[in-house]
Amino acid sequence: MSQQPIRTVAVVGAGLVGLGWAIVFARAGLEVSIFDSQPDTRRDALQRIKNSLTDMNHHGLVDDVEIITKRIRISGSLEDAVGAADYIQESVLERTDVKTAVCEQISKAMRSDAICGSSTSGIPASQFTADLSKRDRFLVVHPVNPPHLIPLVELVAAPWTDQAIIPIVREEMKRIGQSPIVINAEVDGFVLNRLQGALLNEAWALFEDGVASLADIDAAVSHGLGRRWSFMGPFETIDLNAPGGIADYARRLAPLYHSIAASRVAKPWPNDVISRAEGERREVLSRENLVDRSAWRDQRLMALTAALSEIDHGAHSDRDNT
Amino acid sequence: MSQQPIRTVAVVGAGLVGLGWAIVFARAGLEVSIFDSQPDTRRDALQRIKNSLTDMNHHGLVDDVEIITKRIRISGSLEDAVGAADYIQESVLERTDVKTAVCEQISKAMRSDAICGSSTSGIPASQFTADLSKRDRFLVVHPVNPPHLIPLVELVAAPWTDQAIIPIVREEMKRIGQSPIVINAEVDGFVLNRLQGALLNEAWALFEDGVASLADIDAAVSHGLGRRWSFMGPFETIDLNAPGGIADYARRLAPLYHSIAASRVAKPWPNDVISRAEGERREVLSRENLVDRSAWRDQRLMALTAALSEIDHGAHSDRDNT
Repeated sequence: MSQQPIRTVAVVGAGLVGLGWAIVFARAGLEVSIFDSQPDTRRDALQRIKNSLTDMNHHGLVDDVEIITKRIRISGSLEDAVGAADYIQESVLERTDVKTAVCEQISKAMRSDAICGSSTSGIPASQFTADLSKRDRFLVVHPVNPPHLIPLVELVAAPWTDQAIIPIVREEMKRIGQSPIVINAEVDGFVLNRLQGALLNEAWALFEDGVASLADIDAAVSHGLGRRWSFMGPFETIDLNAPGGIADYARRLAPLYHSIAASRVAKPWPNDVISRAEGERREVLSRENLVDRSAWRDQRLMALTAALSEIDHGAHSDRDNT
Repeated sequence: MSQQPIRTVAVVGAGLVGLGWAIVFARAGLEVSIFDSQPDTRRDALQRIKNSLTDMNHHGLVDDVEIITKRIRISGSLEDAVGAADYIQESVLERTDVKTAVCEQISKAMRSDAICGSSTSGIPASQFTADLSKRDRFLVVHPVNPPHLIPLVELVAAPWTDQAIIPIVREEMKRIGQSPIVINAEVDGFVLNRLQGALLNEAWALFEDGVASLADIDAAVSHGLGRRWSFMGPFETIDLNAPGGIADYARRLAPLYHSIAASRVAKPWPNDVISRAEGERREVLSRENLVDRSAWRDQRLMALTAALSEIDHGAHSDRDNT
């Protein structure tokens, strides 16, 4: 695709993540072909997309469900889906052997000037693209679940990825409404899951030590930290939390945060603590209701997206767009 | 106050946190007296409160600014402010010697059945209430900045705090619209700043190592993790992120998160890294504009609060109120 904007996209793997991607691309006006190796999954894909789009329409997030859906077609083979695509989004099972096999098929079927992004949340591209003939056209393009409701995307190159495609993918992701960030090294968990993991490790330790209940630890985030973090990152948050800005804050509070870090040793989450957490969660939400609650989460994300977009465009909008 | 609901409140210290508390109490219909040792601060307090309430009114968060403001009076002495109060919120400078001196004055002036909560974000109550005659009536009641826009409150008892007042304060905080959580041990940073600190420590390390730019690390939270965390805690988030719930998630991902934790050693934030971060932040936001940007943050929090409240009461509301 070189410097041409992406017009046609293939999504390989039609699970939750793949279908979310299909919505992202079609919403932005691109032509999308979907392939999944399971016939049942292929058969249900369009209806599931339509259901999501209808929900989004109720929240004012998309206009015409029919027009968007018409941009999406289901392919009967990977080769058919991928052959003409400017960009391919691989979203199959999170296993190195599966990614390796599917990416080999994609590499053979794709145009030599196409780009393939993998949705992997944790496997570096170097672990499943090393032997591909077009391996310089592959990179990680990791979304957050669900991609059509949370805009962040992590771009992570393998050592052999053509460096020229990073800024291209970044621009294209912005153009279609996502928020791309560039990760400069293939570190475990990239950036998003490293940040989530650091907070989770502390949360598990606080729960294990009985410092607070599971519900209260959750509230510390959902009624506290998360309110600011839904529109400001951690650095901007502390930049505004001391009269002299981030360096002033760091000088005042670095000793406290160092003592917090120094008081913990890295250790696996203990099985008995996991079981206890599972017990507390299943009391407030039964296993049968997990799916309903995920739908509730998506409704909330839709309402939040609509609200944030209104704030962005409202009277009290950003002054400097940082 | 025993089991009677709180009717009259004293706020000692009229900085940003104290004024935020005054708004919280007056908004809930309580009578509030404010004392600050600085005459200038006392003189400006009511006008600053009125300005905040007017902003909140524009976002539909409070009805009648005049009625709420009329519930607040400025006291000329600490004794006058505290003497008749059911509850006292201490919000003076974050220094142990200052807290100790002010709490001694409060302890002498307060009714023996009153309760005094300290706004300290990091100093355990045992470090400044040990010698007070009414020390069993003191505890930490730590808000998030700004208290009138972020509901979370951490309750932390000292070893000598009367255990009976914890559930009382918890109920009262709920009644006036805050979200109290109970911290069962005087740990450094309580729960909120331990969670923030864990994420910040990882964020600083990623920035130091050049894994991503400061702006991109911020975006990973503000356009990614923070979207979910603005209405779900970290445990509920992972409970909904694996088909079998939290234990299923923990089994799948504990090894990744352990390797993330194990790859870091606790160390102070390096000064040169802090300077580099300061440089990047001052490029997007000059020092002179920090105050304006804080006002922007508060406007965003107001809009977000209004939106979340609308979601709570709207057609797509919580199904099970967890």
